[in-house]
Amino acid sequence: MRYQKQSIILAAALMVFVSLSCQEPYEEENIFYPYWHQRVSLFKMLPNSENEIIFLGDSITDGCNWGEMFQDKRVINRGISGDLTSGVLHRLDEVVESKPLKIFLMIGINDLADGKIEREVVYNIEQIVKIIHKKTPDTEIYLQSLLPVNKDYTIFENHVNKTEQIIRINRALKNFSNANDITYVDLYSLFVTKDQKLNPDYTNDGLHLTGAGYLVWKSAVEKYIN
Amino acid sequence: MRYQKQSIILAAALMVFVSLSCQEPYEEENIFYPYWHQRVSLFKMLPNSENEIIFLGDSITDGCNWGEMFQDKRVINRGISGDLTSGVLHRLDEVVESKPLKIFLMIGINDLADGKIEREVVYNIEQIVKIIHKKTPDTEIYLQSLLPVNKDYTIFENHVNKTEQIIRINRALKNFSNANDITYVDLYSLFVTKDQKLNPDYTNDGLHLTGAGYLVWKSAVEKYIN
Repeated sequence: MRYQKQSIILAAALMVFVSLSCQEPYEEENIFYPYWHQRVSLFKMLPNSENEIIFLGDSITDGCNWGEMFQDKRVINRGISGDLTSGVLHRLDEVVESKPLKIFLMIGINDLADGKIEREVVYNIEQIVKIIHKKTPDTEIYLQSLLPVNKDYTIFENHVNKTEQIIRINRALKNFSNANDITYVDLYSLFVTKDQKLNPDYTNDGLHLTGAGYLVWKSAVEKYIN
Repeated sequence: MRYQKQSIILAAALMVFVSLSCQEPYEEENIFYPYWHQRVSLFKMLPNSENEIIFLGDSITDGCNWGEMFQDKRVINRGISGDLTSGVLHRLDEVVESKPLKIFLMIGINDLADGKIEREVVYNIEQIVKIIHKKTPDTEIYLQSLLPVNKDYTIFENHVNKTEQIIRINRALKNFSNANDITYVDLYSLFVTKDQKLNPDYTNDGLHLTGAGYLVWKSAVEKYIN
Protein backbone atom coordinates (compact mmCIF):
# COMPACT_ATOMS: atom_id res chain seq x y z
CA MET A 1 0.00 0.00 0.00
CA ARG A 2 2.76 2.40 0.98
CA TYR A 3 4.59 1.87 -2.29
CA GLN A 4 1.35 2.29 -4.19
CA LYS A 5 0.70 5.66 -2.46
CA GLN A 6 4.23 6.81 -3.23
CA SER A 7 3.78 5.76 -6.84
CA ILE A 8 0.59 7.80 -7.07
CA ILE A 9 2.28 10.87 -5.55
CA LEU A 10 5.22 10.41 -7.87
CA ALA A 11 2.96 10.05 -10.89
CA ALA A 12 0.99 13.15 -9.87
CA ALA A 13 4.19 15.15 -9.37
CA LEU A 14 5.40 13.98 -12.76
CA MET A 15 2.15 15.07 -14.39
CA VAL A 16 2.37 18.53 -12.80
CA PHE A 17 5.99 18.80 -13.91
CA VAL A 18 5.17 17.73 -17.48
CA SER A 19 2.18 20.07 -17.72
CA LEU A 20 4.27 22.99 -16.41
CA SER A 21 7.08 22.14 -18.82
CA CYS A 22 4.61 22.10 -21.68
CA GLN A 23 3.04 25.41 -20.73
CA GLU A 24 5.83 27.70 -21.86
CA PRO A 25 5.99 26.59 -25.50
CA TYR A 26 2.20 26.82 -25.62
CA GLU A 27 2.30 30.45 -24.44
CA GLU A 28 5.18 31.21 -26.81
CA GLU A 29 3.07 29.83 -29.62
CA ASN A 30 0.26 32.16 -28.60
CA ILE A 31 2.49 35.19 -28.86
CA PHE A 32 4.47 34.02 -31.84
CA TYR A 33 1.94 33.04 -34.44
CA PRO A 34 2.91 31.75 -37.93
CA TYR A 35 2.96 35.19 -39.59
CA TRP A 36 5.28 36.54 -36.88
CA HIS A 37 7.76 33.74 -37.59
CA GLN A 38 7.41 34.17 -41.35
CA ARG A 39 8.31 37.85 -41.08
CA VAL A 40 11.14 37.42 -38.58
CA SER A 41 12.72 34.63 -40.65
CA LEU A 42 12.46 36.91 -43.70
CA PHE A 43 14.02 39.86 -41.84
CA LYS A 44 16.93 37.66 -40.73
CA MET A 45 17.50 36.55 -44.31
CA LEU A 46 17.48 40.06 -45.82
CA PRO A 47 20.91 41.66 -46.27
CA ASN A 48 22.04 44.32 -43.79
CA SER A 49 22.80 47.69 -45.36
CA GLU A 50 24.51 50.84 -44.23
CA ASN A 51 22.38 53.67 -42.89
CA GLU A 52 19.13 51.77 -42.65
CA ILE A 53 16.11 53.82 -41.60
CA ILE A 54 13.76 51.35 -39.95
CA PHE A 55 10.02 51.60 -39.36
CA LEU A 56 9.41 49.19 -36.48
CA GLY A 57 6.00 48.15 -35.20
CA ASP A 58 2.77 46.23 -35.77
CA SER A 59 0.18 46.08 -38.57
CA ILE A 60 -0.05 49.87 -38.83
CA THR A 61 3.66 49.93 -39.71
CA ASP A 62 3.49 46.67 -41.68
CA GLY A 63 0.78 48.05 -43.99
CA CYS A 64 2.90 50.73 -45.66
CA ASN A 65 5.52 50.53 -48.42
CA TRP A 66 7.87 52.89 -46.61
CA GLY A 67 10.80 52.79 -49.03
CA GLU A 68 8.52 53.53 -51.95
CA MET A 69 6.71 56.26 -50.03
CA PHE A 70 9.93 58.16 -49.30
CA GLN A 71 11.54 57.06 -52.60
CA ASP A 72 14.52 56.11 -50.49
CA LYS A 73 16.12 52.66 -50.53
CA ARG A 74 17.45 53.14 -47.00
CA VAL A 75 13.93 53.19 -45.55
CA ILE A 76 12.79 49.64 -44.67
CA ASN A 77 9.80 47.95 -43.08
CA ARG A 78 10.07 46.01 -39.83
CA GLY A 79 6.36 45.93 -39.06
CA ILE A 80 4.57 42.68 -38.20
CA SER A 81 0.81 42.60 -38.24
CA GLY A 82 -0.47 41.64 -34.78
CA ASP A 83 2.80 42.26 -32.99
CA LEU A 84 3.03 43.21 -29.31
CA THR A 85 5.66 45.09 -27.30
CA SER A 86 6.90 41.67 -26.14
CA GLY A 87 7.15 40.54 -29.77
CA VAL A 88 9.35 43.51 -30.66
CA LEU A 89 11.52 42.84 -27.61
CA HIS A 90 11.99 39.25 -28.83
CA ARG A 91 13.11 40.26 -32.31
CA LEU A 92 15.20 43.31 -31.46
CA ASP A 93 18.54 41.63 -32.19
CA GLU A 94 17.73 41.47 -35.90
CA VAL A 95 16.70 45.13 -35.87
CA VAL A 96 19.87 46.49 -34.26
CA GLU A 97 22.27 44.16 -36.08
CA SER A 98 22.90 46.56 -38.97
CA LYS A 99 23.49 49.50 -36.57
CA PRO A 100 20.74 51.46 -38.31
CA LEU A 101 20.89 55.21 -38.82
CA LYS A 102 17.39 55.77 -37.44
CA ILE A 103 14.52 53.76 -35.96
CA PHE A 104 10.90 54.94 -35.97
CA LEU A 105 9.01 52.92 -33.36
CA MET A 106 5.24 52.59 -32.91
CA ILE A 107 4.02 49.64 -30.84
CA GLY A 108 1.52 48.86 -28.09
CA ILE A 109 -2.02 49.05 -29.45
CA ASN A 110 -2.30 45.25 -29.71
CA ASP A 111 -1.17 44.98 -26.09
CA LEU A 112 -4.21 47.08 -25.12
CA ALA A 113 -6.50 44.99 -27.33
CA ASP A 114 -5.04 41.98 -25.51
CA GLY A 115 -6.02 43.48 -22.16
CA LYS A 116 -2.48 44.35 -21.01
CA ILE A 117 -2.22 47.17 -18.46
CA GLU A 118 -0.72 50.55 -19.36
CA ARG A 119 2.23 50.21 -17.02
CA GLU A 120 3.32 47.01 -18.72
CA VAL A 121 3.06 48.56 -22.19
CA VAL A 122 5.07 51.62 -21.20
CA TYR A 123 7.64 49.51 -19.38
CA ASN A 124 8.17 47.27 -22.43
CA ILE A 125 8.51 50.24 -24.79
CA GLU A 126 11.08 51.80 -22.46
CA GLN A 127 12.95 48.49 -22.45
CA ILE A 128 12.92 48.43 -26.27
CA VAL A 129 14.39 51.94 -26.40
CA LYS A 130 17.02 51.15 -23.75
CA ILE A 131 18.11 47.95 -25.51
CA ILE A 132 18.38 49.75 -28.86
CA HIS A 133 20.40 52.51 -27.22
CA LYS A 134 22.69 50.02 -25.52
CA LYS A 135 23.31 47.85 -28.59
CA THR A 136 23.63 50.63 -31.14
CA PRO A 137 24.22 53.95 -29.33
CA ASP A 138 24.58 56.00 -32.52
CA THR A 139 21.13 55.08 -33.82
CA GLU A 140 18.65 57.96 -33.60
CA ILE A 141 15.40 56.77 -32.02
CA TYR A 142 12.06 58.34 -32.89
CA LEU A 143 9.43 57.26 -30.42
CA GLN A 144 6.07 57.69 -32.09
CA SER A 145 2.84 58.07 -30.12
CA LEU A 146 0.09 55.50 -30.33
CA LEU A 147 -2.66 56.53 -32.73
CA PRO A 148 -6.24 57.02 -31.57
CA VAL A 149 -8.82 54.33 -32.43
CA ASN A 150 -12.54 54.60 -33.07
CA LYS A 151 -15.56 52.43 -32.44
CA ASP A 152 -15.45 50.86 -35.89
CA TYR A 153 -12.65 48.74 -34.52
CA THR A 154 -14.87 46.10 -32.96
CA ILE A 155 -12.14 44.43 -30.94
CA PHE A 156 -12.42 47.30 -28.49
CA GLU A 157 -16.22 47.15 -28.23
CA ASN A 158 -16.44 45.12 -25.07
CA HIS A 159 -13.49 46.66 -23.32
CA VAL A 160 -13.24 49.68 -21.10
CA ASN A 161 -12.44 52.93 -22.81
CA LYS A 162 -9.13 52.45 -24.58
CA THR A 163 -8.90 56.13 -25.50
CA GLU A 164 -8.04 57.15 -21.94
CA GLN A 165 -5.37 54.46 -21.82
CA ILE A 166 -3.88 55.57 -25.14
CA ILE A 167 -3.71 59.18 -23.94
CA ARG A 168 -2.00 58.19 -20.70
CA ILE A 169 0.49 55.91 -22.48
CA ASN A 170 1.38 58.70 -24.91
CA ARG A 171 1.92 61.10 -22.01
CA ALA A 172 4.28 58.59 -20.40
CA LEU A 173 6.16 58.06 -23.70
CA LYS A 174 6.55 61.81 -24.14
CA ASN A 175 7.94 62.23 -20.61
CA PHE A 176 10.28 59.28 -21.10
CA SER A 177 11.50 60.73 -24.41
CA ASN A 178 12.18 64.14 -22.89
CA ALA A 179 14.02 62.62 -19.96
CA ASN A 180 16.15 60.41 -22.21
CA ASP A 181 16.96 62.86 -24.96
CA ILE A 182 15.19 60.99 -27.77
CA THR A 183 12.67 62.43 -30.22
CA TYR A 184 9.00 61.98 -29.37
CA VAL A 185 6.75 62.16 -32.44
CA ASP A 186 3.19 63.16 -31.60
CA LEU A 187 1.13 61.53 -34.35
CA TYR A 188 -1.93 61.23 -32.10
CA SER A 189 -2.83 64.92 -32.44
CA LEU A 190 -2.70 64.70 -36.24
CA PHE A 191 -5.10 61.75 -36.42
CA VAL A 192 -7.62 62.58 -33.70
CA THR A 193 -11.07 64.18 -33.92
CA LYS A 194 -12.40 66.63 -31.33
CA ASP A 195 -13.98 63.74 -29.42
CA GLN A 196 -10.63 61.90 -29.23
CA LYS A 197 -11.36 59.29 -31.90
CA LEU A 198 -9.36 58.20 -34.95
CA ASN A 199 -10.43 60.51 -37.77
CA PRO A 200 -12.55 58.50 -40.24
CA ASP A 201 -10.84 60.40 -43.10
CA TYR A 202 -7.76 58.27 -42.43
CA THR A 203 -9.20 54.82 -41.65
CA ASN A 204 -11.82 52.38 -42.87
CA ASP A 205 -11.89 50.10 -39.84
CA GLY A 206 -11.19 52.32 -36.86
CA LEU A 207 -7.60 51.13 -36.32
CA HIS A 208 -5.65 50.77 -39.59
CA LEU A 209 -4.76 53.54 -42.02
CA THR A 210 -5.75 54.15 -45.61
CA GLY A 211 -3.44 55.89 -48.09
CA ALA A 212 -4.67 59.29 -46.86
CA GLY A 213 -3.61 58.34 -43.34
CA TYR A 214 -0.14 57.26 -44.40
CA LEU A 215 0.26 60.59 -46.19
CA VAL A 216 -0.35 62.42 -42.90
CA TRP A 217 2.19 60.18 -41.18
CA LYS A 218 4.70 60.83 -43.97
CA SER A 219 4.28 64.60 -43.69
CA ALA A 220 4.90 64.37 -39.94
CA VAL A 221 8.19 62.46 -40.14
CA GLU A 222 9.77 63.34 -43.49
CA LYS A 223 11.78 66.17 -41.90
CA TYR A 224 13.56 63.48 -39.86
CA ILE A 225 14.24 61.24 -42.87
CA ASN A 226 16.07 63.71 -45.10
CA MET B 1 -59.13 33.79 -53.39
CA ARG B 2 -57.80 34.46 -56.86
CA TYR B 3 -56.53 37.93 -55.89
CA GLN B 4 -54.94 36.50 -52.76
CA LYS B 5 -53.03 33.93 -54.84
CA GLN B 6 -51.87 36.62 -57.27
CA SER B 7 -50.72 38.76 -54.32
CA ILE B 8 -48.71 35.89 -52.92
CA ILE B 9 -47.06 35.25 -56.31
CA LEU B 10 -46.36 38.98 -56.70
CA ALA B 11 -44.88 39.20 -53.19
CA ALA B 12 -42.71 36.15 -53.83
CA ALA B 13 -41.50 37.56 -57.14
CA LEU B 14 -40.71 40.85 -55.42
CA MET B 15 -38.72 39.07 -52.71
CA VAL B 16 -36.68 37.18 -55.31
CA PHE B 17 -36.07 40.43 -57.19
CA VAL B 18 -35.00 42.30 -54.05
CA SER B 19 -32.73 39.46 -52.89
CA LEU B 20 -31.09 39.26 -56.33
CA SER B 21 -30.65 43.05 -56.42
CA CYS B 22 -29.04 42.99 -53.00
CA GLN B 23 -26.69 40.15 -53.88
CA GLU B 24 -24.17 42.08 -55.92
CA PRO B 25 -23.11 44.71 -53.33
CA TYR B 26 -23.01 41.96 -50.72
CA GLU B 27 -20.61 39.95 -52.85
CA GLU B 28 -18.50 43.06 -53.59
CA GLU B 29 -18.14 43.62 -49.89
CA ASN B 30 -17.01 40.03 -49.49
CA ILE B 31 -14.27 40.51 -52.06
CA PHE B 32 -13.21 43.97 -50.98
CA TYR B 33 -12.51 43.75 -47.29
CA PRO B 34 -10.98 46.64 -45.27
CA TYR B 35 -7.35 45.59 -45.77
CA TRP B 36 -7.85 45.40 -49.56
CA HIS B 37 -9.08 48.99 -49.58
CA GLN B 38 -6.29 50.13 -47.26
CA ARG B 39 -3.68 48.70 -49.59
CA VAL B 40 -5.26 49.94 -52.82
CA SER B 41 -5.70 53.47 -51.43
CA LEU B 42 -2.03 53.38 -50.39
CA PHE B 43 -0.91 52.15 -53.83
CA LYS B 44 -2.86 54.97 -55.49
CA MET B 45 -1.19 57.51 -53.24
CA LEU B 46 2.38 56.27 -53.80
CA PRO B 47 4.34 58.10 -56.50
CA ASN B 48 4.76 56.46 -59.91
CA SER B 49 8.39 55.91 -60.90
CA GLU B 50 10.15 54.99 -64.09
CA ASN B 51 11.04 51.35 -64.69
CA GLU B 52 9.05 49.90 -61.85
CA ILE B 53 9.43 46.15 -61.34
CA ILE B 54 6.20 45.03 -59.71
CA PHE B 55 5.46 41.91 -57.68
CA LEU B 56 1.69 41.52 -57.98
CA GLY B 57 -0.39 39.04 -56.03
CA ASP B 58 -1.87 37.94 -52.70
CA SER B 59 -0.46 37.33 -49.21
CA ILE B 60 2.44 35.25 -50.54
CA THR B 61 3.61 38.30 -52.49
CA ASP B 62 2.52 40.77 -49.79
CA GLY B 63 4.67 39.06 -47.17
CA CYS B 64 8.04 39.89 -48.73
CA ASN B 65 10.11 43.10 -48.71
CA TRP B 66 10.96 42.80 -52.40
CA GLY B 67 12.90 46.04 -52.83
CA GLU B 68 15.07 45.21 -49.86
CA MET B 69 15.54 41.63 -50.99
CA PHE B 70 16.89 42.65 -54.40
CA GLN B 71 18.53 45.82 -53.01
CA ASP B 72 16.82 47.61 -55.86
CA LYS B 73 14.55 50.62 -55.42
CA ARG B 74 12.71 49.82 -58.65
CA VAL B 75 11.30 46.59 -57.21
CA ILE B 76 7.97 47.26 -55.46
CA ASN B 77 5.26 45.29 -53.69
CA ARG B 78 1.70 45.12 -55.02
CA GLY B 79 0.61 42.14 -52.98
CA ILE B 80 -2.58 42.18 -50.92
CA SER B 81 -3.14 39.50 -48.34
CA GLY B 82 -6.33 37.58 -49.16
CA ASP B 83 -6.62 38.87 -52.72
CA LEU B 84 -8.35 36.95 -55.51
CA THR B 85 -7.96 37.01 -59.29
CA SER B 86 -11.06 39.23 -59.37
CA GLY B 87 -9.44 41.58 -56.84
CA VAL B 88 -6.36 41.98 -59.05
CA LEU B 89 -8.61 42.62 -62.07
CA HIS B 90 -10.33 45.39 -60.12
CA ARG B 91 -7.11 47.17 -59.17
CA LEU B 92 -5.17 46.70 -62.38
CA ASP B 93 -5.45 50.36 -63.45
CA GLU B 94 -3.19 51.44 -60.61
CA VAL B 95 -0.67 48.72 -61.50
CA VAL B 96 -0.32 49.64 -65.17
CA GLU B 97 -0.47 53.42 -64.67
CA SER B 98 3.30 53.82 -64.36
CA LYS B 99 3.92 51.67 -67.48
CA PRO B 100 6.15 49.37 -65.43
CA LEU B 101 9.25 47.70 -66.83
CA LYS B 102 8.24 44.24 -65.55
CA ILE B 103 5.39 42.60 -63.69
CA PHE B 104 5.76 39.32 -61.75
CA LEU B 105 2.27 37.90 -61.21
CA MET B 106 1.21 35.13 -58.83
CA ILE B 107 -2.49 34.91 -58.00
CA GLY B 108 -5.26 32.34 -57.65
CA ILE B 109 -4.69 30.21 -54.55
CA ASN B 110 -7.34 32.14 -52.57
CA ASP B 111 -9.80 31.55 -55.41
CA LEU B 112 -9.33 27.82 -54.86
CA ALA B 113 -9.70 28.21 -51.09
CA ASP B 114 -12.92 30.09 -51.89
CA GLY B 115 -14.18 27.13 -53.91
CA LYS B 116 -13.84 28.76 -57.34
CA ILE B 117 -13.44 26.36 -60.26
CA GLU B 118 -10.17 26.06 -62.16
CA ARG B 119 -11.58 27.37 -65.44
CA GLU B 120 -12.62 30.61 -63.75
CA VAL B 121 -9.19 31.07 -62.12
CA VAL B 122 -7.35 30.49 -65.40
CA TYR B 123 -9.75 32.71 -67.32
CA ASN B 124 -9.28 35.58 -64.87
CA ILE B 125 -5.49 35.27 -64.94
CA GLU B 126 -5.55 35.31 -68.74
CA GLN B 127 -7.71 38.44 -68.57
CA ILE B 128 -5.21 40.09 -66.21
CA VAL B 129 -2.35 39.35 -68.62
CA LYS B 130 -4.34 40.55 -71.63
CA ILE B 131 -5.33 43.82 -69.94
CA ILE B 132 -1.76 44.49 -68.85
CA HIS B 133 -0.55 43.79 -72.37
CA LYS B 134 -3.19 46.07 -73.88
CA LYS B 135 -2.64 48.99 -71.50
CA THR B 136 1.14 48.85 -71.35
CA PRO B 137 2.43 46.73 -74.27
CA ASP B 138 6.12 47.27 -73.47
CA THR B 139 5.83 45.80 -69.98
CA GLU B 140 7.45 42.37 -69.67
CA ILE B 141 5.09 39.95 -67.96
CA TYR B 142 6.35 37.05 -65.85
CA LEU B 143 3.54 34.64 -65.12
CA GLN B 144 4.51 32.67 -62.05
CA SER B 145 3.01 29.27 -61.26
CA LEU B 146 0.91 28.71 -58.19
CA LEU B 147 2.88 27.20 -55.33
CA PRO B 148 1.96 23.82 -53.85
CA VAL B 149 0.22 23.72 -50.45
CA ASN B 150 0.33 21.13 -47.70
CA LYS B 151 -2.09 19.80 -45.11
CA ASP B 152 -0.91 22.24 -42.42
CA TYR B 153 -3.00 24.81 -44.22
CA THR B 154 -6.28 23.92 -42.54
CA ILE B 155 -8.49 25.94 -44.88
CA PHE B 156 -8.05 23.14 -47.40
CA GLU B 157 -8.81 20.33 -44.96
CA ASN B 158 -12.44 19.88 -45.86
CA HIS B 159 -12.10 20.48 -49.55
CA VAL B 160 -11.36 18.10 -52.36
CA ASN B 161 -7.74 17.69 -53.27
CA LYS B 162 -6.45 21.14 -54.22
CA THR B 163 -3.12 19.75 -55.38
CA GLU B 164 -4.65 18.32 -58.56
CA GLN B 165 -6.31 21.66 -59.26
CA ILE B 166 -3.07 23.56 -58.72
CA ILE B 167 -1.20 21.25 -61.10
CA ARG B 168 -3.88 21.63 -63.79
CA ILE B 169 -3.97 25.43 -63.40
CA ASN B 170 -0.19 25.62 -63.70
CA ARG B 171 -0.32 23.51 -66.85
CA ALA B 172 -2.90 25.87 -68.34
CA LEU B 173 -0.82 28.93 -67.36
CA LYS B 174 2.28 27.42 -68.97
CA ASN B 175 0.41 26.69 -72.21
CA PHE B 176 -1.09 30.18 -72.22
CA SER B 177 2.36 31.72 -71.65
CA ASN B 178 3.92 29.76 -74.49
CA ALA B 179 1.09 30.66 -76.86
CA ASN B 180 1.28 34.35 -75.97
CA ASP B 181 5.03 34.82 -75.87
CA ILE B 182 5.29 35.73 -72.21
CA THR B 183 7.63 34.18 -69.65
CA TYR B 184 6.22 31.36 -67.50
CA VAL B 185 8.10 30.94 -64.22
CA ASP B 186 7.76 27.46 -62.76
CA LEU B 187 8.13 28.01 -59.02
CA TYR B 188 5.98 24.96 -58.22
CA SER B 189 8.79 22.49 -58.99
CA LEU B 190 11.17 24.33 -56.67
CA PHE B 191 8.82 24.22 -53.70
CA VAL B 192 7.26 20.78 -54.01
CA THR B 193 8.10 17.52 -52.28
CA LYS B 194 7.97 14.12 -54.00
CA ASP B 195 4.36 13.68 -52.86
CA GLN B 196 3.34 17.01 -54.44
CA LYS B 197 3.13 19.03 -51.21
CA LEU B 198 4.64 22.37 -50.23
CA ASN B 199 8.06 21.57 -48.79
CA PRO B 200 7.97 22.14 -45.01
CA ASP B 201 11.50 23.61 -45.22
CA TYR B 202 9.92 26.71 -46.78
CA THR B 203 6.69 27.17 -44.82
CA ASN B 204 5.38 27.07 -41.27
CA ASP B 205 1.66 26.92 -42.10
CA GLY B 206 1.38 24.97 -45.33
CA LEU B 207 0.64 27.99 -47.53
CA HIS B 208 2.84 31.01 -46.71
CA LEU B 209 6.61 31.23 -47.01
CA THR B 210 9.31 31.73 -44.44
CA GLY B 211 12.56 33.56 -45.22
CA ALA B 212 14.06 30.34 -46.60
CA GLY B 213 11.17 30.10 -49.04
CA TYR B 214 11.57 33.67 -50.26
CA LEU B 215 15.25 32.96 -50.85
CA VAL B 216 14.31 30.12 -53.24
CA TRP B 217 11.87 32.44 -55.02
CA LYS B 218 14.57 35.11 -55.28
CA SER B 219 17.07 32.69 -56.78
CA ALA B 220 14.48 31.65 -59.37
CA VAL B 221 13.68 35.16 -60.64
CA GLU B 222 16.77 37.27 -60.05
CA LYS B 223 18.05 36.56 -63.55
CA TYR B 224 14.97 38.41 -64.84
CA ILE B 225 15.47 41.39 -62.52
CA ASN B 226 19.01 42.37 -63.45
